[in-house]
Amino acid sequence: MSKTGMVYLVGAGPGDPRLLTLRGKECIERADVIIYDRLLSPRLLRYRRPNAELIYVGKDPHQDSLKQEQINRLLVEHAKQGKIVTRLKGGDPCVFGRVGEEALLLAEESIPFEIVPGITSAIAVPAYAGIPVTHRGIASSFIVVTGHEDPTKDQSHLDWEAIATTTGTVVILMGVQNLAWIVDNLLLFGRPADTPVALI
Amino acid sequence: MSKTGMVYLVGAGPGDPRLLTLRGKECIERADVIIYDRLLSPRLLRYRRPNAELIYVGKDPHQDSLKQEQINRLLVEHAKQGKIVTRLKGGDPCVFGRVGEEALLLAEESIPFEIVPGITSAIAVPAYAGIPVTHRGIASSFIVVTGHEDPTKDQSHLDWEAIATTTGTVVILMGVQNLAWIVDNLLLFGRPADTPVALI
Repeated sequence: MSKTGMVYLVGAGPGDPRLLTLRGKECIERADVIIYDRLLSPRLLRYRRPNAELIYVGKDPHQDSLKQEQINRLLVEHAKQGKIVTRLKGGDPCVFGRVGEEALLLAEESIPFEIVPGITSAIAVPAYAGIPVTHRGIASSFIVVTGHEDPTKDQSHLDWEAIATTTGTVVILMGVQNLAWIVDNLLLFGRPADTPVALI
Repeated sequence: MSKTGMVYLVGAGPGDPRLLTLRGKECIERADVIIYDRLLSPRLLRYRRPNAELIYVGKDPHQDSLKQEQINRLLVEHAKQGKIVTRLKGGDPCVFGRVGEEALLLAEESIPFEIVPGITSAIAVPAYAGIPVTHRGIASSFIVVTGHEDPTKDQSHLDWEAIATTTGTVVILMGVQNLAWIVDNLLLFGRPADTPVALI
């Protein structure tokens, strides 16, 4: 019987390599195979073993599903060879990182895995720009939204009325391409036009 | 002229000490004074210098403002003695961590400081329980809310209608004491009664 490997689904943080977690560093150090994305700081790969295999899957923000299937297949194939696989993702794997799909597949294939949280850009990028997402007396909540939805699709998964009317901070990730559409939606559903905005 | 110190406002993560960032570890290692909270894993303090001064400020979730003023004073006093001060906070300092108040005061006092993001329990605790806060086709957004608001106060800072009607994940922090009130608000404003819920 061949031994089964292990998959670590690791959040690599928002870009500054010093924001990797100690656990994330361990997962890079012990990996036989490292499967990594476009967003990642290359400096993180310095922690790898000299003979670790590096596989660049260069996922772009458009995340087409064919690519995701290829990544899934890579995870399963290498783990079934008994290898330790570290899947490095930008930010936090649970924040628009599709970790749920990878985890479900690994569970179906009976491959052991661990999710290692990372620093999400949704909070750290505003912080580096001097903006805490909550602040006493100003924001008692924050909402994180993908700005990458296709504006031409029939029905949005987002409820723009609810997003526009929360009294807290609204963080929109991957929103540059749809910026005008996002602003229109927020104004349409009642966000005041004098709401302070930062594009970071 | 006496030299001015430096203050690091560091997120220590959600409890698992391996979720400290590399930068957070550096800030503990170089500190002359470490000012830390109740929520923190004591294991993180192992990284300190042998002669580092430890100051426990044991802030509880009720965060009364007198205590916050005392903490502010400690930060300023030690930094003005030319010391490197590391202020360790549970989770991420920008998520209900009152880092904005500390940062404003330090800026007013012309004391250099750096905010070091941490892993927030708002995302990592659901992840450890197997729940990604976003999932393709299920949740395209998530909102993080304090559950600790006083239900008897005249006006809530939270817009429960907006929170209840977002189509994404709702994460409520520090909500156990007000659980019945929170559930009543969500149901009142239209969150379906069969919404899956996890208490972690």
